[in-house]
Amino acid sequence: MADVHALHPLTQSGPVHEVLEKGVLRLTLDSPPANALSIAVMERLHELLDKARNDKAVRVIVIGAVGRIFSGGHDLKEITLHRADPDRGRAFFEKTMQLCAALMQAIVHHPKPIIAEVAGLATAAGCQLVASCDLAIASTEATFCTPGVNIGLFCSTPMVALTRNVSRKQAMEMLLTGETIEATEAREFGLLNRVVPPEYLNQVVNKYAEAIASKSPLTVKIGKEAFYKQAEMSLADAYDYTARVMVENMMARDAEEGIGAFIGKRKPEWTGE
Amino acid sequence: MADVHALHPLTQSGPVHEVLEKGVLRLTLDSPPANALSIAVMERLHELLDKARNDKAVRVIVIGAVGRIFSGGHDLKEITLHRADPDRGRAFFEKTMQLCAALMQAIVHHPKPIIAEVAGLATAAGCQLVASCDLAIASTEATFCTPGVNIGLFCSTPMVALTRNVSRKQAMEMLLTGETIEATEAREFGLLNRVVPPEYLNQVVNKYAEAIASKSPLTVKIGKEAFYKQAEMSLADAYDYTARVMVENMMARDAEEGIGAFIGKRKPEWTGE
Amino acid sequence: MADVHALHPLTQSGPVHEVLEKGVLRLTLDSPPANALSIAVMERLHELLDKARNDKAVRVIVIGAVGRIFSGGHDLKEITLHRADPDRGRAFFEKTMQLCAALMQAIVHHPKPIIAEVAGLATAAGCQLVASCDLAIASTEATFCTPGVNIGLFCSTPMVALTRNVSRKQAMEMLLTGETIEATEAREFGLLNRVVPPEYLNQVVNKYAEAIASKSPLTVKIGKEAFYKQAEMSLADAYDYTARVMVENMMARDAEEGIGAFIGKRKPEWTGE
Repeated sequence: MADVHALHPLTQSGPVHEVLEKGVLRLTLDSPPANALSIAVMERLHELLDKARNDKAVRVIVIGAVGRIFSGGHDLKEITLHRADPDRGRAFFEKTMQLCAALMQAIVHHPKPIIAEVAGLATAAGCQLVASCDLAIASTEATFCTPGVNIGLFCSTPMVALTRNVSRKQAMEMLLTGETIEATEAREFGLLNRVVPPEYLNQVVNKYAEAIASKSPLTVKIGKEAFYKQAEMSLADAYDYTARVMVENMMARDAEEGIGAFIGKRKPEWTGE
Repeated sequence: MADVHALHPLTQSGPVHEVLEKGVLRLTLDSPPANALSIAVMERLHELLDKARNDKAVRVIVIGAVGRIFSGGHDLKEITLHRADPDRGRAFFEKTMQLCAALMQAIVHHPKPIIAEVAGLATAAGCQLVASCDLAIASTEATFCTPGVNIGLFCSTPMVALTRNVSRKQAMEMLLTGETIEATEAREFGLLNRVVPPEYLNQVVNKYAEAIASKSPLTVKIGKEAFYKQAEMSLADAYDYTARVMVENMMARDAEEGIGAFIGKRKPEWTGE
Repeated sequence: MADVHALHPLTQSGPVHEVLEKGVLRLTLDSPPANALSIAVMERLHELLDKARNDKAVRVIVIGAVGRIFSGGHDLKEITLHRADPDRGRAFFEKTMQLCAALMQAIVHHPKPIIAEVAGLATAAGCQLVASCDLAIASTEATFCTPGVNIGLFCSTPMVALTRNVSRKQAMEMLLTGETIEATEAREFGLLNRVVPPEYLNQVVNKYAEAIASKSPLTVKIGKEAFYKQAEMSLADAYDYTARVMVENMMARDAEEGIGAFIGKRKPEWTGE
C-alpha cells in the first residue's frame, strides 16, 4: 500500500474521486443517483485525466461510478435552466458539447489505457463515455442506451463513439428506438470486453488493470497512440506509419530489455524509456 | 384508419405497392416470383421514395416484398436481351448500375428511417437493398447471398453496402463462394437487427416502425443524416460536426418540448420543428 | 493429378514449400517449431506469391504451416543478433518491417484469393498473416495473440491487419493484455471464417479452395481488387467506382458466358477473359 498516492479517499468530496493504488488510478463519478455529466463533472474528470498524463505512478486508469447508474449523460436540468438565458441556452449548450467532445477525445488520446467499469445504466453521454474508453468491463446488471431521440435530441455525439465500436445496424437500432440493451447484448455488439456477475466486477477490472500496469508504460503509450491513428488511415499509410512506429519502439531501452528477458526466460524490468 | 392515404391497395397494379398507415409507408415489391430489380422496379421505388421525402404523413418507411423471394437482384433476362444492342448492352448496363447506385444512396440519404422486412431470399442487389436500409428485420426463413461470382459477374456494388454492415472475412466469404447464409448467421454478421418466426415478422416490423414513428420526425431526420456523415469522418472531424448538429437540434422546438416533457413526466407533442 | 505442377514436394527443402494441385497452390511454412517470419521466410513467401500472380494454373492460394505453431511472428533471435550492429540493429529492423509490410500488402493486393489454414498458434506477425488473408479457417486447437506488449515491443504493424478484421475493444484487449484467445473466440471476433476439428481442417480448407477455384478467375480478380479499394472510399466514391467495375466486368466474355449458362441452366466454361 506504500504506493497509494497522498489522497484521502474517505474524506474526498466533489463529483469525482481519485484513488491511486498499485499503478491503477481509479476515477469514480460520485453524483448519485444519476452521475450526470454536468459541466462541473466533465471539467473535473478532464482535469484529473490531464494531471495523470505525465504522472509516472499512473499506469492504467479505471473510470467507475458510485451507485446503480454509471452515468445518465448530460444534466438536463442544468441545460433547461439555461433556456432562460437571452440566447435560449445556445452558448451554454455549445459549452457543454465542446467540453464533452474534448473529454471523450482526451480519453482516446490519453497515453495510459483507460478502462470503463460499468455496474449499472450507461445512457446517452454515459454510454459514449463507455464507448470512448479503450476497454469496458460490465456487470451482468449493466444496461446501455442512447435515448436522446425520446426527448427530441438525437444522441449525435454519443453515436460518434458508439459507431466506432458497434456495427451500423445495431447502432442505428439503439439510436432510432432509444431502447435499452443488456450487457450481454452490448458485449455481442462489440461495446464491452467482458460481462461478469456484479460481485466480481471490481475484481475482474482489477485483474485487467494490473495485467496492463505490469507492461512497459512506454510501450503501451506508443501502441495506444498508434492504434487510433492508424485506424483512420488507408492500409498503405497505416503500414508506412506503424512500420516507423515499430522501429522507434524497437530502439527503445524497454524493447531491448523485454526481448532480452524473453530470450533469457527472466522477468523484464521496465524503465519506461 | 382515418390517416390511411388516398391509396387503393387492393386495386394497385405495378411493380411496387404503397400503403400508408399510422405514419408507416409500406413499399412492397410485387413482381413475383423473383421481385427482380428491373429498371422499372428501381425507377418506381426511387420515385416513391422521392415522393415520401417531404410528405409529413410519412414517418417511417418499410420495404417488403410479395412471395418467397424478397428480391433476386437485377433482372438478368432484361440485361441479356440488351446483349443484342450495337454496344453489346454496355449502355443499358451502365443505366442499370447508375439507377441501382442512386436508389441505394437515396435510401441512405432519405430523411425518414427505412426498415427492410425480409421474409425470403435476398440475393445480389436484393441483399444490397437489405444492407442499405437503416434497419433490417427478417423471418427465420430468410436467406442471403451475393452469388454474382457464380455467373462471372462479381457482386461489386452489393459489396459496397454489405461491407458497411459485415466484417471483412465474412463479407469476403459470401462474395467469393456465392453461398447462401441463414438469417441467424446474417444477424450474427451484423446484417440484420432481428430474426423472428415468419408468422410474427409483420408484427415485429410494425412494432419497430410504430416506435420510431412516435419520435419527433425532425429529430430523427437530423440524427439519421448525421449518422452516415460522421461515419466517414475522422474522430476529430466527427466530433466537431456532431457537436454543431446537437446544438442546432437543441435549439429546435421539438427538443425543448421533449426535454420539458421528460422533466415534467408528460408525453411530448412533436411539431417537427 | 495431371495438373500437379513440376514441383517435387517430397524433396523440397527451404522454409516454404509449394504444391499446386487442382488449381490450388499450397504454400506451407516449414521452419518448425516456431515457423518464424525471418527475413528468409518472408522473402521466399513474397517471391512465391509474386510467381503465382500471373500463373493461370493457380486459382486459389492456401497458406499453411508444418507443426503445432502456425507462425510465431518475427524471428527475435535474428533481430537480437543485430543489436551488435553499429546502428544497434536499426537498419536490420527497418528491413524486417518493410519486408513484412510489403508481404502483408502483397497478400491483400494479390489477384488470387488467399486462405489461411491455421492448425496451431498464430502470434504477432503470425496473427497478422492470418488477418491479412482473404479468408481464414482454423482448427479448434488454433489460438491467436498479439503479445508484443509483453516484450516491450507493441504489435503495431499486426494491429493494422487485426483492426481491419476485429472490433476496436476486442483488438485493444488482445494488444494491451497480450493474452491468447481460442479459435472460437477469434471467429466471434471476425478474424476467422470457420473453426473445425483438427482432423477436418485440411478437408474443409480444400472444400473452400476448390469452390473458389471453380469460379471465373477473371471475375474473382476483379472482385477482390474492388473489395479492398472500395473499403477505403466514401459511400459515394465507392458506388461510382464499383458501378464502373461492374460495367467492365459485365462486358467481359466470362460474364456473358456465366449469365448465358445460368439462364440456359448449364455449367459455365470460363476462359478468364
